[in-house]
Amino acid sequence: MASTEHVRHFQEELEHLKGRLLEMGGLAEEQVRLAVKGLVDRDRDLIDRVIGGDEPLNRLHIELDGRCFTLLALYQPMAVDLRAIVAAVKINTDLERVGDLAINIAEASRQYVAHAPVKKLIDIPRMASFAQRMLRDALDAFVRRDTILAQRVLDEDDVLDDLKTQIFRELITYMLQDPGTIEPALDLILISRHLERIGDHATNIAEDVIFMVSAKDVRHHAGEGTEPGRR
Amino acid sequence: MASTEHVRHFQEELEHLKGRLLEMGGLAEEQVRLAVKGLVDRDRDLIDRVIGGDEPLNRLHIELDGRCFTLLALYQPMAVDLRAIVAAVKINTDLERVGDLAINIAEASRQYVAHAPVKKLIDIPRMASFAQRMLRDALDAFVRRDTILAQRVLDEDDVLDDLKTQIFRELITYMLQDPGTIEPALDLILISRHLERIGDHATNIAEDVIFMVSAKDVRHHAGEGTEPGRR
Repeated sequence: MASTEHVRHFQEELEHLKGRLLEMGGLAEEQVRLAVKGLVDRDRDLIDRVIGGDEPLNRLHIELDGRCFTLLALYQPMAVDLRAIVAAVKINTDLERVGDLAINIAEASRQYVAHAPVKKLIDIPRMASFAQRMLRDALDAFVRRDTILAQRVLDEDDVLDDLKTQIFRELITYMLQDPGTIEPALDLILISRHLERIGDHATNIAEDVIFMVSAKDVRHHAGEGTEPGRR
Repeated sequence: MASTEHVRHFQEELEHLKGRLLEMGGLAEEQVRLAVKGLVDRDRDLIDRVIGGDEPLNRLHIELDGRCFTLLALYQPMAVDLRAIVAAVKINTDLERVGDLAINIAEASRQYVAHAPVKKLIDIPRMASFAQRMLRDALDAFVRRDTILAQRVLDEDDVLDDLKTQIFRELITYMLQDPGTIEPALDLILISRHLERIGDHATNIAEDVIFMVSAKDVRHHAGEGTEPGRR
């Protein structure tokens, strides 16, 4: 990057990109929230709205990918700026998948509400708010380049995994006691897996943040006990 | 990119990167194949080898991400070359996830073989070879910049979805008839979902290939009936 003018433009564009990514994260999170609300309230209209509501996210996905390409091509950024744009490309993909998972949750919810309720839903809404918070924190960490917050997201991933296992064990008991619960219990098991995957996407984002800021690769425990990361 | 020397170096590095991505794809595919072979043969040793066998893929994942950054920083490629590197970043992520899914399949298989077999496994190996072929074709399409092959991968995705639905329906019948099959049948349902997701990753790669070659975005039916894509 040559002139200070050029640098200023790049930084403005980067800020704008971050703002749009936050917006996209907000939309994805809202889709997850509404899908689980539709499940808990047994609200078919809401569930159908979530299933038909992926257009804004898909449009943002394409727009943001385009912005990233333009930034790479026009400004040829280096070091942390380059890593920020590549991180944005990946985060964009993660957020689009979160939107898809919200739809998967809504689809399984539509199946679920066609049967009598298996049980009072407590752990699934808990998983959902946890996953949503992880996602929000991961995106905040990206925007603020906050590796401490990103690390906290990584540390929290086990909570979702434990909740998923707990839900699984409990539902198996229901299924064994009453075969009439098999189909709806299966829907809940799949929903808990979708929520766990939302947490995985938050974790991906947090890993990208740490790499962006420190050029240190925390995936696969890279560099543990050896030289730091890949750069 | 300035001199022809510079251009030549970039093209050499890009070819090398493609070769490494193919290698990684081969490893990921082999992990999937072995996980499903372990399931079908009820071979616990093989299953455990798959579960413990993600190191080479993880190392390649980190190495290839590093190569992509270096290529972007040193050569500042434009147009189709820029799109190729960004596609490589995404494909690298997809292949690493395929490796994770192979481990998920092996973990569910380990649970499955702890019970009596539910049924003769026919559709799951069929799903697996189909998903492996989609992955191979998508990677070949990337290396050869072959949009026709990439489009074929996109067209094939429904086959996996249909097989998954068929497996699901059949296993529900087993579970309803004999509660003793609930737990192992659940493992098979989860395995079929993991295989479907491998097909999704092949689809992602195929979409990236089409965008790389034609700068045309085929995701979310972008540009249908309007101007092409996002560029």
